[in-house]
Order: sequence, then C-alpha cells, then structure tokens
Amino acid sequence: MLPPQILPALTAALGPDRVFSDAGTLALYSSDETPRRVTPGAVLFPASHAHVAALMQIAHAHNIPVVARGAGSGNVGGALPVEHGLVVSFECMNKVLEFDPANRLIVVQPGVVTEDIGALARTRGLFYPPDPGSGAYSRIGGNLAMNAAGPRAIKYGVTRDFVLGLKAVTGDGKTLTTGCRTSKGVTGYDFTRLLVGSEGTLALITEATLRLVPAPETVATLRLCFNSNRAACEAVERVMAQSVLPCALEIMDRRSIEAIRPTGAADDLPLGTEALLMVEADGPVRDVPHQIAALKEALKGEGLLEVREGVTREEAVALWTARKSLSHAVKQYAPLKINEDVVVPVSRLADFIDFLDNQGHRYPFPIVSFGHAGNGNLHVNLMVHPDDAEEMAQARACLNELFATVLAYGGTLSGEHGIGTEKRAYVGLEIDPDTLGLMRAVKKQFDPAGILNPGKLFPDD
Amino acid sequence: MLPPQILPALTAALGPDRVFSDAGTLALYSSDETPRRVTPGAVLFPASHAHVAALMQIAHAHNIPVVARGAGSGNVGGALPVEHGLVVSFECMNKVLEFDPANRLIVVQPGVVTEDIGALARTRGLFYPPDPGSGAYSRIGGNLAMNAAGPRAIKYGVTRDFVLGLKAVTGDGKTLTTGCRTSKGVTGYDFTRLLVGSEGTLALITEATLRLVPAPETVATLRLCFNSNRAACEAVERVMAQSVLPCALEIMDRRSIEAIRPTGAADDLPLGTEALLMVEADGPVRDVPHQIAALKEALKGEGLLEVREGVTREEAVALWTARKSLSHAVKQYAPLKINEDVVVPVSRLADFIDFLDNQGHRYPFPIVSFGHAGNGNLHVNLMVHPDDAEEMAQARACLNELFATVLAYGGTLSGEHGIGTEKRAYVGLEIDPDTLGLMRAVKKQFDPAGILNPGKLFPDD
Repeated sequence: MLPPQILPALTAALGPDRVFSDAGTLALYSSDETPRRVTPGAVLFPASHAHVAALMQIAHAHNIPVVARGAGSGNVGGALPVEHGLVVSFECMNKVLEFDPANRLIVVQPGVVTEDIGALARTRGLFYPPDPGSGAYSRIGGNLAMNAAGPRAIKYGVTRDFVLGLKAVTGDGKTLTTGCRTSKGVTGYDFTRLLVGSEGTLALITEATLRLVPAPETVATLRLCFNSNRAACEAVERVMAQSVLPCALEIMDRRSIEAIRPTGAADDLPLGTEALLMVEADGPVRDVPHQIAALKEALKGEGLLEVREGVTREEAVALWTARKSLSHAVKQYAPLKINEDVVVPVSRLADFIDFLDNQGHRYPFPIVSFGHAGNGNLHVNLMVHPDDAEEMAQARACLNELFATVLAYGGTLSGEHGIGTEKRAYVGLEIDPDTLGLMRAVKKQFDPAGILNPGKLFPDD
Repeated sequence: MLPPQILPALTAALGPDRVFSDAGTLALYSSDETPRRVTPGAVLFPASHAHVAALMQIAHAHNIPVVARGAGSGNVGGALPVEHGLVVSFECMNKVLEFDPANRLIVVQPGVVTEDIGALARTRGLFYPPDPGSGAYSRIGGNLAMNAAGPRAIKYGVTRDFVLGLKAVTGDGKTLTTGCRTSKGVTGYDFTRLLVGSEGTLALITEATLRLVPAPETVATLRLCFNSNRAACEAVERVMAQSVLPCALEIMDRRSIEAIRPTGAADDLPLGTEALLMVEADGPVRDVPHQIAALKEALKGEGLLEVREGVTREEAVALWTARKSLSHAVKQYAPLKINEDVVVPVSRLADFIDFLDNQGHRYPFPIVSFGHAGNGNLHVNLMVHPDDAEEMAQARACLNELFATVLAYGGTLSGEHGIGTEKRAYVGLEIDPDTLGLMRAVKKQFDPAGILNPGKLFPDD
C-alpha cells in the first residue's frame, strides 16, 4: 500500500486530474507487451518538467518506486509497474516544443508518438530515421529509455545516434541538462548517451533534443525468395561485403513463412520458398536504381528462387505486408511468444540460423525467427504454452542454449528491445562482475534510494 | 617526488625498459600542444592490458596521479602531466589486434596512429571517417579520450559514433569491458560512450572495437571565394538547408586569409576575397557530379566571387593547401595561439562571424577563425604575447565575451578539442551545478582516489 499521505501530496503538487488510484486506471496501466500484470499504487499524468521534479521529490522522500511509461509497447517489461509503486505516464507531455529545420533539430516531450516526429520532419524535407515496429503508437520517451531501433538502423543508426541532448529528473528529484543543441559538442561527460538505453533506472527524461537528417527522395524495395535459411543468410553476408548500404535488410526464416501462410500473405511466394529477404534502398531518385542494381547483383547466388521489385510505393507497401503481419500471425502457434532479439556478427548469421533450425528440431515448440539480418539482429520467438510446466522448463533450457550460442559467436543479448524484467537473469552472462558492479554504483549516484524502475535491467544481487 | 618504493614496484610489474625517470625522458613527456610544461615523476610504456591494470593498482595503492598519453597532440592540456605523477604512454600498445572486414570492424590498441586505421580499412574497401587535423600522428587512444572529429564529422559523425566497445582499466585497477562487437546492442548502460570523451578521467582505454563503413568511391572538392565573412556564412546556411550533405564544409575567415597571404597560398584568390569555403562531396563516381552540382547551386548567392572545382585528386589536394597551412601560418602573428573550438547553431554562424569581426576591432590582437562551418564549429584563435600582462588580461576578457556569446546563441564550449586544463574554468558556464555534481559523483565510482588525470575537465571545486 502507498503511505496514506502520498496521494494528497502528489495531488497538491500536480494538480487535480493528474493522480489516479481507481481500480480501472490501475488495471489499465498494469501491463506492457509481456504477459505479466502488476498492479501499481497510483498512476500519475504530469504535464511539465516541474511536475516530474515535484513527484520525484515526493517519491524519494517516501521511498516509493517510480516506473516511467510511454505507450506500454515494450517487449521486455521495462514499463511494467512495481506493486504499490507509482507509474508515471507521459501521455500528457506530448508536445513538440520546438522544430528548427535550419539547425536540423526538434525538441520534444517524451509523450510524442515516434512516427509523428518523422511526419513533422518530412514537412520540411527532413527525416527522423529510427523506425521501431511500434512506431505508430510508441512514445519517444520509451524509445529513448530502450534505445529503440528498427529496419533502418542498418543504414542510419539507432535512437541513441539521433539524440543531441536531454532534460531529465534524477531519482532524488534533481534536474539534469545533458548534451547540446549543435551537431558537435564534447563539454563534460556524455550523460546523454548514458541515459539513452538506461531503461528508466537513472532518471526520467522530460525533454529530448533530436537530430534530423535530410530526407531521402525515394525508396525502392526488393523481395527475394530463397530455398533455404542458410542461402538467405549467405546473401545477407554478400550484401554486407559490398559498398551499397541498404536502408533495410530484413529476413523471414522458414518458420516465419509457415506462420504467415494461413493469412494468405505467402500465397504468391514461389514453390520451395523457405526464407525471404526484404531489401530497401533509399536516396536520390537518380541514384536509387543504381543501388538496387548493385544490391541485386550481390544478392544473386546459390538458392535464390525469385526477385521481385516494388517499383511504386504502393507495390512496396504490399511487399511489406507479409513482414508486418508476422508479429500477430505467430500467435496462432501458441498463446505465449517468448520474444528474444539477440544479435550475432553478420558473418555468423548463417551458422546461427542453422543452430536455430536445429533447436527447432530438438524442442517440441515452434521457434520462429525474423528480423534485422543486416545488423545480425534476429527476433527469435519461442511459441509456448505458459500453463505447460514441462514445456516452459524446456523453453528455459532452449533459451539458455540460445544465449550461450549468441555470446559464443561474439553477439549480444539484445539489439533493441532491452533487458527489462525478461532478460535480467542473463545479463551476468554478457557483462562481467566488475563492469556490472560499476553500473550499479553509477545507478546509485543518479538514484540514491533505488526507486527508479527497481527490478529491471540488473540481475538480482 | 614519487615515493621511493614506486619505481621498483612499477619495474617489477612492467618489466625492464618500460619505466623511465631520467631527466631527458621526463622533459620529452612534459608537454602537449599547449605552451605549458609540467614535469612528471616517471613515464611508463606498458605493452599490454595486464601492464596497465598492474600499474593502475600500484598507482591506486600509493595515490599517485596517472595521465594517459597518445601522441601528445591535444590542444587543451588533456595529456599534460601532473607534477611528480605518472605518465602512461601508449606508444608500445600500437597493434591492430583484429581486422574483420566481414563484420566491418577493427580492434585496435590505443597507440595505433589514427590514419593507419583508415589506411588498413581502405585495403578492403572500408573507411574509418573521423579525420582530426592531427590524424597523421595522433593516436586513437587520444582521439577516444577527447572524442576527436574533423571535417568529415558533418556527414559521418565523430569518433564516438564509430566505437562499438572498449576494454579499459579504472582508477582502482579494475578491468572494464563495455559495448559489443555487433552494430546493435543495448545490454546494460552505455559505458562505451561514457568513456569516450571523458579525457582519461574515468579509465585508461586499452582496446577499442571500431565500426567501419563502406569507403566512398570518390571525392570532389570545391573552393569558393566570397567578398565577406557574412556572405560565406550565409552560403553555409543555404547548404545546410538542402538535402545533399557534403563530407566537408570548411570556412576560412578574412583574417585567416590574411594569415596565409605571406605563405603564397592565397596568391590565386580573386581580388576582394575576404572569406573562403572548402566544400567536398563523396560517394559513387556516378553520383558525386550530381552532388557537386546541387552544392554549387546552393552555394550561389550574394557575395560569391569565384568557384573552383578540383576534378582530380591532385587538384583537390592543391585546393586544400591553404587550409592545411593555416595552423602554422597564424603563428607569425604572435608567439601564443589561444585556440578555442566553440560551436554555434548553424543558423547563428553569420551573426557569430559578425561578433568575431567586431571583437577583432575592439581588441588589439588578431583573432583568426576557421574550421568546420557545416557543424557551426569554429576554431577561434587569439594571437597574443604571453609576456604582455595587459594583452593577456584583454585576452581573458575577450574569451569571457566569446564564451558568453556562444552559450547565448545555444552553442557549446568545445566541439572536438575537449576541456582539459585550458577550458575547465568555463565549464560551469555551460553545465549546471547539479549535472556537474553528478559527473563528479560518477567519476568517483570509476576512480575512487581521484588519481586519473586530476585537474582536467572539471572546474575547481
């Protein structure tokens, strides 16, 4: 239970209609994209940086856990409440504070929807590249907390690469201002990038200055069908060994294709298709055809069954339908999707796909893999029944083998989803005790009481 | 004086010929590019990560200051020794540990010369973009410590943007491993970018995994002469308002041109030239002419006197001669160059040049400005006589006005040189006390005894 004086104190600080503790609201804010539910003690809707500073000071004084929340679209439990703790929803801090095309930047509050930033940028010929799958509803604050990415990361980089500066509130209610408004700046430690990807455990971001780049004139799309997963992965390696950098290089493995067959989205695939690549190139209208030609040349090889080129934007959208339908299509297999987003070096992708195929044969549940092949970043989905204890035990064994293999290949546990509650038990496999100890020590400086998103990112002590 | 047991302990740990305390060596390692000289107590030449860990444990146990040193080519005193402290020269840790073209990465020790990385990358069609002016002799460890940049930053980003992971030793001798070997990775806090630009105050970097990109096929160069500084800056704003991103957009102001006249490098400039832009575009051979055409179109305007195009690489090199000769040419004016590398938003560049012109009229010493206009990053050089107390007092007043103006414009104190000893008195103008306090608290976690590069980056308490 929250201490009885907390709600009146928060209401006094934030004003009426910004503090909710009714059962309906609590239920609505009790989950994210993971299957877990945790009921918070209250949900707060601050409207300003001053509100956030005030609520953090109250939470710190009373030692109440605080979890920041954007759209609740995270995959790893990063926005999952702490029981009886506070959820800070940034839905009401959803303003673009400044759009400065001459200096190619935009200043936003954390509640702005990701794709709205790109849409506004486009009105002046500019571009915000990060494109997480949830971009149509995810909030930029969540993207910053998790260092979100998406297909375009292969060419443009991830959220981190587009943040110039931040305003934030620490765990003890202090205001931080990090970074700068210019495209270069080295004054002081890089707290900007320390906060990006820190999953709400160091500070609550209340304002972000984002870098924009010139918008590409056009995009062209290829869809390629291969007769095996390995053939598709070898094509990815060939693409990454030549000089044209696609703006997307996505893979769907054999089981992903099986997954979308019932939806009809795979009806036009040639017989024998076992893996699919989606490849995009962007840039000047005069240049993109040359890029596409070079990419097609690199993609040619053993096992390629068909190349389809989406010339118009409409055709390209149609080509992406299969890829987009996948996240939901896989749910037909089993009620629980254990969704990992591991990364391996591109040169090990074919070996890794073989490993996954083999795991698929060894375990009784389907393993469906797709994702950002050009970054070596695969979404590996174990489709399981959470009520089947034996299957869940096997899933845990499978995950242990998965992470061990990824790390043995020189990869990493997460490319873009983050750690949250879901992967924290495995962090110690990747980060050594001294480095992890120093991360804990740094956290303590930002959040002396340990109230910012406890139980996330770090393994148990 | 060093405690008497220190040198034998260090020699025992590092082996013979790695610990020097003779007057000749101490003198050789007593300075960097600033005019100051500080004599250290000993200079160490570790050959391995284990050596660095061992020496830091000894230094920590005896509370001896430790300053890391690459080539000593820094501009702000970052590598300046502490009296009686240890200098750790990374000259002997100069190996490329791994070059992995398939995964577009290279693993280097800190003593590798910057341009050697690029040269090796080129052998496999890859590219390491950061190009500090000192790249022919600077060591990558120094580049990492200061987050070095150069002309190409406008298109490609700075050193920070090319670091995937680091190995390092903290102030108490612990080994840190940060980041990953893949192009994406979000496991744990971003200690990689926290260390980059931390000026040797958090840890000694012993190994860096750097990201490479496909090498551009060709580069083309434009030299443009303008009849005023403002006209040149307005052309920069026009370039940054269209979609072709040059890979260099450099300015030399009126006084820079005056500075190079005696060298003959300005002989071919048309009459009335008061400012010069150097603009480069790179990319596929088929596309660069289109980029150049678009850039020429954007650069056209009031005050443009002449455009010269370097079609061959040799012509381009000739066009850059004036720009390259500048760093030394300015020294004819006065024995001391106070070299600031402030940044202003591109939209304020013309106003900022007016301000600098005005300062040049108000103060008796020449102010020579040139640099990376596309980033709004100008090298502002006050040419003064260090023995003239009145002139030095005026220089300080001029600097105070300079920094106040830069910050009022929304700029930053340093774009690429860093803070070191030279700018630390001004850091409090840019970073607020709470944020700076937290930076100090973070430093204390990495370096509990405060022995890593004391007296740098932070203002006095």
